[in-house]
Amino acid sequence: MSARRIASRIDNLGTETAFAVSGDAAAWMAKGNRVFPFHLGDMNIRTPLNIIEAANRAAVDGHTGYNPAAGIPALRDALAEAVSRDRGQNYSAANVSVQSGGKPVIGKFLNTVMEQGDGVLYPNPGYPIYESQVEYLGGRTQPYTYVVEDGRFRFDRESLVAALDDTTRVLIVNAQHNPTGADADPSDMEWLAGLAVERDLWVLSDDPYIDIRYDGTSHTILEHDGMAERTVILYTFSKKYAMTGWRLGAAIGPESVVDVITKINTNDESCTNHFVQYAGVEALQGDQSGSANILETLRGRRELIVDRLNGIDGVSVPESAATFYLFVDVTDVYKRMGLDPDSEDDVQKFRISTMHETGVSFCSRSHFGRGTAGEPRVYVRFAYSGIDVADAEEGLAQLKAYWER
Amino acid sequence: MSARRIASRIDNLGTETAFAVSGDAAAWMAKGNRVFPFHLGDMNIRTPLNIIEAANRAAVDGHTGYNPAAGIPALRDALAEAVSRDRGQNYSAANVSVQSGGKPVIGKFLNTVMEQGDGVLYPNPGYPIYESQVEYLGGRTQPYTYVVEDGRFRFDRESLVAALDDTTRVLIVNAQHNPTGADADPSDMEWLAGLAVERDLWVLSDDPYIDIRYDGTSHTILEHDGMAERTVILYTFSKKYAMTGWRLGAAIGPESVVDVITKINTNDESCTNHFVQYAGVEALQGDQSGSANILETLRGRRELIVDRLNGIDGVSVPESAATFYLFVDVTDVYKRMGLDPDSEDDVQKFRISTMHETGVSFCSRSHFGRGTAGEPRVYVRFAYSGIDVADAEEGLAQLKAYWER
Repeated sequence: MSARRIASRIDNLGTETAFAVSGDAAAWMAKGNRVFPFHLGDMNIRTPLNIIEAANRAAVDGHTGYNPAAGIPALRDALAEAVSRDRGQNYSAANVSVQSGGKPVIGKFLNTVMEQGDGVLYPNPGYPIYESQVEYLGGRTQPYTYVVEDGRFRFDRESLVAALDDTTRVLIVNAQHNPTGADADPSDMEWLAGLAVERDLWVLSDDPYIDIRYDGTSHTILEHDGMAERTVILYTFSKKYAMTGWRLGAAIGPESVVDVITKINTNDESCTNHFVQYAGVEALQGDQSGSANILETLRGRRELIVDRLNGIDGVSVPESAATFYLFVDVTDVYKRMGLDPDSEDDVQKFRISTMHETGVSFCSRSHFGRGTAGEPRVYVRFAYSGIDVADAEEGLAQLKAYWER
Repeated sequence: MSARRIASRIDNLGTETAFAVSGDAAAWMAKGNRVFPFHLGDMNIRTPLNIIEAANRAAVDGHTGYNPAAGIPALRDALAEAVSRDRGQNYSAANVSVQSGGKPVIGKFLNTVMEQGDGVLYPNPGYPIYESQVEYLGGRTQPYTYVVEDGRFRFDRESLVAALDDTTRVLIVNAQHNPTGADADPSDMEWLAGLAVERDLWVLSDDPYIDIRYDGTSHTILEHDGMAERTVILYTFSKKYAMTGWRLGAAIGPESVVDVITKINTNDESCTNHFVQYAGVEALQGDQSGSANILETLRGRRELIVDRLNGIDGVSVPESAATFYLFVDVTDVYKRMGLDPDSEDDVQKFRISTMHETGVSFCSRSHFGRGTAGEPRVYVRFAYSGIDVADAEEGLAQLKAYWER
């Protein structure tokens, strides 16, 4: 009998359970069925060609060897300039550590600033990797939640106050919020900033959707006093430039933290792909018509999908000016079907039966962090990054017929 | 006064101090001096064009979105087939987790199998990230060493027996060895395999240089009984295909471990760049003339450099059939210069003064793990992956003049 075992720390490692939804959809399609993919956080929109050409040119030109662990100077400069301009900051290349995507910033930031036993405030529902990494690295999970007010989601100050305690050392903010589509309210960001200063917290500003908005201006916590010195930005090229599969992003913040993150790069992966970074420079400084087209494509989908979902009896879509997600209240549909909102079995039965009857695939509340028992309303997430207008229209017509039956 | 601190775990995180050598060389060049770069582990050889074309074609074809955390099926199949063929194994795609380079395998493997307090046997001198990651993750460092016998390096069984104890749970083997260029002796691999079975150890077979050899056949620990079930291979495209800056590799081994490594992918970076994986398929299954040319280029450099180094009075180059490194005995040059072999200050003075006088830049023993005080001979590492024959010849002529002065 072997004594070899998987290490006990792995017991605390979570995952993105939403991948199970993709698996369910793929299995259903493999049986010859049609699926309308509203579950995807991925994009079915092409990367602008000028960006692909820049990568290829750099590879052909020989930029295929190692590069610095913090990234090539040209991309660090370009990111410092772009992010300083968009957020009223004064970053230089020294504040930038290029990463193989935005996601690596979460684990590296927590490794750098969070001691074992430190409390971490993070959104739930939210990106499930926050919860997974905090638990994996031995922190204390302190989730805060979102509520609907005046027809739109906003983060719930009361839940945050209830979650924090003397162990709290880190605050994670996702200003343009996955999965609710909640947009940052400047007064909420100011309140959060005040709390971060008062409690002397480290802050992760996870901003993948800052440029995916259809009206107004994006706000983040960084615009308030005392934030720059304590905040690391998670930057990613994935959404604005439809580069999800390129794996290109950055940690941007105080040198004391960014230098450690770069040292982790050296240990964990050496550096980010060399020629892909030249594509990043082109994305930031080249022709911007590609990203403008991406946003218009998303806007067109959003208008149709919000309209059609609101046209289903028992469905209510909170308003959202940002992200490509809708967190849709289906409580009344649920009740009509005789399902129990507090039963996770029923939640998954609802998701699966809807896909089998209509082809429409979406994610459930429980794919965004452990659910809180007793939440009063039932929500599901519709993403419109991976489905065209014509398919969306067809799928939602079937959905209306089934959910209103 | 802020209570915000960098987390204490970072105190245990090491780095690759060899990057300081690159920094010294860059600074010396910036002052208008010529440098002959024998310090680089990077390659100044281009990636074969068919591989670059495959990446570009995949990007233009729209393979720019997310892909599975374990990698695209085509690459997992191709890796399983190639590694099974080359090493007499029977792997399938289920045994393969694609990574953003070979290096990520080290940390992810240790996260997966090493408990805090477990002893890890690893080569020192050796790749410095072994030592750094073991200490970072709370393991016990149990270095073993290499000795010269009959004019070539081989690993030292006595030092390994002295290092192991009842806490030992993991063995790291680097069969074609950086920095000594030592090639695996089949009898040594058999002895190591026996020990791994007897002690029921997990094994990391770190094989970046398995295809960089100029004579004979590469052996690894995996060819011995009882190894497949306990061994994870670190595979990288970096050296054979001159793809160091592409960041493409894989962990290959038992599903129980590989599945956990894939779960870590999901948490740490989602997936590896999508279109780059199509380049990996082309590298493995397409025209192989590019990798053959790379090896012939390295062979030509090696012949000249070994000859010229051995022509310097007081220098001795142990023979090596593999890797692109030479670990060169400079003890007698040292003594002639009146330097103290036990003084790290003198070691660095020797390296810097040689670069200033001759332009020749190389790495020292201490760049490959903490030195053992009292090592009887002084070695420095010459890499020939980053310097052409003509430059090498010119630099080594200057070196001869200075070291024989």
